[in-house]
Amino acid sequence: MSQFNIAVLAGDGIGPEVMQEANKVLDAIETRFDVTFNRNAYPVGGFAIDTEGEALPPKTLAGCEAADAILFGSIGGPKWDTLPLEKRPERAALLTLRSHFDLFSNLRPARIYPGLEHLSPLRADIAASGVDVLVVRELTSGIYFGQPKGMQGEGEEEFAFDTMRYSRREIRRIAIAAFEAAQKRRGKVTSVDKANVLVCSRLWREVTEEVAKQYPDVELEHIYIDNATMQVMKNPAQFDVMLCSNLFGDIISDECAMMTGSMGLLASASMNEDGFGLYEPAGGSAPDIAGQGIANPIAQILSAAMMLRFSLNQQAAADAIEQAVVRTLEDGVLTGELLNSDQRHNAASTAQVGDAIVKHI
Amino acid sequence: MSQFNIAVLAGDGIGPEVMQEANKVLDAIETRFDVTFNRNAYPVGGFAIDTEGEALPPKTLAGCEAADAILFGSIGGPKWDTLPLEKRPERAALLTLRSHFDLFSNLRPARIYPGLEHLSPLRADIAASGVDVLVVRELTSGIYFGQPKGMQGEGEEEFAFDTMRYSRREIRRIAIAAFEAAQKRRGKVTSVDKANVLVCSRLWREVTEEVAKQYPDVELEHIYIDNATMQVMKNPAQFDVMLCSNLFGDIISDECAMMTGSMGLLASASMNEDGFGLYEPAGGSAPDIAGQGIANPIAQILSAAMMLRFSLNQQAAADAIEQAVVRTLEDGVLTGELLNSDQRHNAASTAQVGDAIVKHI
Ligand SMILES: CC(C)[C@H](C(=O)O)[C@@H](O)C(=O)O
Ligand SMILES: CC(C)[C@H](C(=O)O)[C@@H](O)C(=O)O
Repeated sequence: MSQFNIAVLAGDGIGPEVMQEANKVLDAIETRFDVTFNRNAYPVGGFAIDTEGEALPPKTLAGCEAADAILFGSIGGPKWDTLPLEKRPERAALLTLRSHFDLFSNLRPARIYPGLEHLSPLRADIAASGVDVLVVRELTSGIYFGQPKGMQGEGEEEFAFDTMRYSRREIRRIAIAAFEAAQKRRGKVTSVDKANVLVCSRLWREVTEEVAKQYPDVELEHIYIDNATMQVMKNPAQFDVMLCSNLFGDIISDECAMMTGSMGLLASASMNEDGFGLYEPAGGSAPDIAGQGIANPIAQILSAAMMLRFSLNQQAAADAIEQAVVRTLEDGVLTGELLNSDQRHNAASTAQVGDAIVKHI
Repeated sequence: MSQFNIAVLAGDGIGPEVMQEANKVLDAIETRFDVTFNRNAYPVGGFAIDTEGEALPPKTLAGCEAADAILFGSIGGPKWDTLPLEKRPERAALLTLRSHFDLFSNLRPARIYPGLEHLSPLRADIAASGVDVLVVRELTSGIYFGQPKGMQGEGEEEFAFDTMRYSRREIRRIAIAAFEAAQKRRGKVTSVDKANVLVCSRLWREVTEEVAKQYPDVELEHIYIDNATMQVMKNPAQFDVMLCSNLFGDIISDECAMMTGSMGLLASASMNEDGFGLYEPAGGSAPDIAGQGIANPIAQILSAAMMLRFSLNQQAAADAIEQAVVRTLEDGVLTGELLNSDQRHNAASTAQVGDAIVKHI
């Protein structure tokens, strides 16, 4: 029997309540499959600031180091927005975890689920065109982490500066991740850059072309970031895998998530070269609806499925979760935000959705 | 009687044919108002590469220097895409003109015209919600022009780098432009940044807050670029003026343009502190439809109207052009891309649209 250690970092806002449902689902997987998940919960984000004085306490980091994977909830909220930037949950916890564990490969799938097309902000015919995109985002380099970064000069000529930076090695490994993913999907990589302006994008294009030669069965195309934001709106079905640098991936993955109209269904994986990873929902901590038992737990549950698939190599268990989610959606067990306003009185609670998924496992 | 010198740079693709209609409209303005436009045409872009050996020949630059404003068509096309980056039309002509004349203030209006909602890729209810956004983009600094920029290192550790850079002065002057514009519109500025990651964005936020104090009648809000791309799709009617740095403005203005579904109607202005400016359509050179007489001339004609308004201070003439365009649209004199496919046989030609606008002046 396989045993795994999982660091559970529920965080703030709706994090704890959706994490509870993900835990139920992992319990069900333990019952049905020959596997045990030793789960240890650690404080993170605003909750950790309040209880331990910092967003990523040493014991949390140590717990993550001892684990086979991190299941992450969500962090942040208005209460901590006035802290200096370096102490805020997003920067002090999330960016630090990404960088500490070298989680360079960020996978963010976005699809419009059949039957949920009406939730998309896109025109009906576009929403119905079969949208299923995987954004592969570089997560540990680029302008997020490039040095130098700072302020210089005096008076009105005082200026701020940030450095965008990419090495061949950094580009190559994320490009490989995109091509590998495309081979298992529809065989197309669209690389997003701004090669008409940025030196980093020129190198990005060059290395991506080199990597493409090793994958003759995958088609590669390049698109400028400004045009990409247009095409995601106009014709998202044209995309299979979108390969992006850190900043452009931040932008494109959020645009793709919004385009589906069902952010509460979207999971993400952030992995390093050893297959270690952090798994988290695409949406935020949603402080406005926290504690009411109405948040959608599916993104958190699908994050757990991604964890099983990518870090723990439990394909059958991952499949079982994903199929149970699809059946639950088909059964119409839906939280409020997935329903038109005149149907909201039929909304299922966070726990009811979790229970329905458990039943299908 | 007022006299103005205008440098006319028609460029490539559909540039020359839509410029012809803008010239017709300027002729009509001369007839109706007490004003003369001395127009001098100069080669630019791919056409200039083919005829003069470079995208921005010295005589073109000299002609622009001698003018009161530049009326610009569009440049570029597949024929010149294989040239080294520094020689390509976009970089060698457009970015050079922006920088040479310090055209820091780029205004890009995007609205969904009543009656043309069906063209928007957004869901019908969102497209009908009254969308009218002005993107104010900083155009001469940021990561487009920041130094150093280059390559360093060896082998797989060789890396590319670009510098994002903003001074207080640069931020202040574009923020002022945004607040001034908002005062004449609906009194709201949304400043787009990534202040949770970039030092430049932190300074951007700080200076924008300072400027806001001088405009107590204008509301200021801040939004992260990733969230901005989502909100433009979900609820674009919430925005009045969107204030952006160079790179974020490139992305957001294109997303806003696409959201209208009628790129052929969108004009833009790029101005310096003396009111000198370059006026160009938002769409590109569209080489695929060039020379067929089917391109929409309205974006070019509205660019001429912006030129009259912002550089030549001819408000009445600018109003006359804008009203004539609205009437022409109301009359249903529309080029093909504004019609549903089953209506395309009724499409007006480039020249017919130009003539209809002239008639309304
Ligand atoms: C919270 C923020 C720093 C983060 C990012 O920009 O990467 C978030 O937007 C994301 O996409 O995970
Ligand atoms: C052609 C290109 C360099 C340019 C830019 O990025 O500024 C264009 O996209 C624009 O928005 O005017």
